[in-house]
Amino acid sequence: MSDLPGPVPPDLARLRRSIDNIDAALVHLLAERFKATQQVGVLKARLDLPPSDPGREAAQVARLRALAQEADLDPVFAEKFLAFIVDEVIRHHEAIAQDHAQAGTQATAQDASVGHA
Amino acid sequence: MSDLPGPVPPDLARLRRSIDNIDAALVHLLAERFKATQQVGVLKARLDLPPSDPGREAAQVARLRALAQEADLDPVFAEKFLAFIVDEVIRHHEAIAQDHAQAGTQATAQDASVGHA
Repeated sequence: MSDLPGPVPPDLARLRRSIDNIDAALVHLLAERFKATQQVGVLKARLDLPPSDPGREAAQVARLRALAQEADLDPVFAEKFLAFIVDEVIRHHEAIAQDHAQAGTQATAQDASVGHA
Repeated sequence: MSDLPGPVPPDLARLRRSIDNIDAALVHLLAERFKATQQVGVLKARLDLPPSDPGREAAQVARLRALAQEADLDPVFAEKFLAFIVDEVIRHHEAIAQDHAQAGTQATAQDASVGHA
């Protein structure tokens, strides 16, 4: 589990256990966040809204930078982190919009009365 | 706050409030994680341990992928996420090791009996 020369010092083992607990919490929060953005994607596709919203994203960046500063986290890192997550979200949303458009096209082909594609 | 055409639909506003809450939690957890890795960096520099530990990192990746799968998060994304965080941590550790080496050199110059640089 470790390539360190010799046994893992107790203080290092203790810190690593805390890091592992934090990482488990981060993974679960990220899973929850993507469940929410997945719903946003479906909603945007249904309402024909654009996948990205620059005004909303600018507000998120400003808010996260301020929260990071309060929490003693590098605001530049917080901004990079949000960009990293949003990249993934946009990819999900584009895939949802594409699925939705395809489903709409298929439905229209089957039944001309179904308008929304 | 939003560039959407027209007012933000209530369902979208509700989801965005949840995303904002999750993001605040993520920022605070990340701040806590960097506090722990900062301590790891100081400890490694003090004990002359290498900044990176490939065995530990492989174990972290395997664990996070498994946790992600259970939580319905894309394991590939979880792995990319850990790599993104670890990149930042390694940069912090290298900076700490450099500061530590400089402090050690200065101390050695001032007092030849102080061995550890």
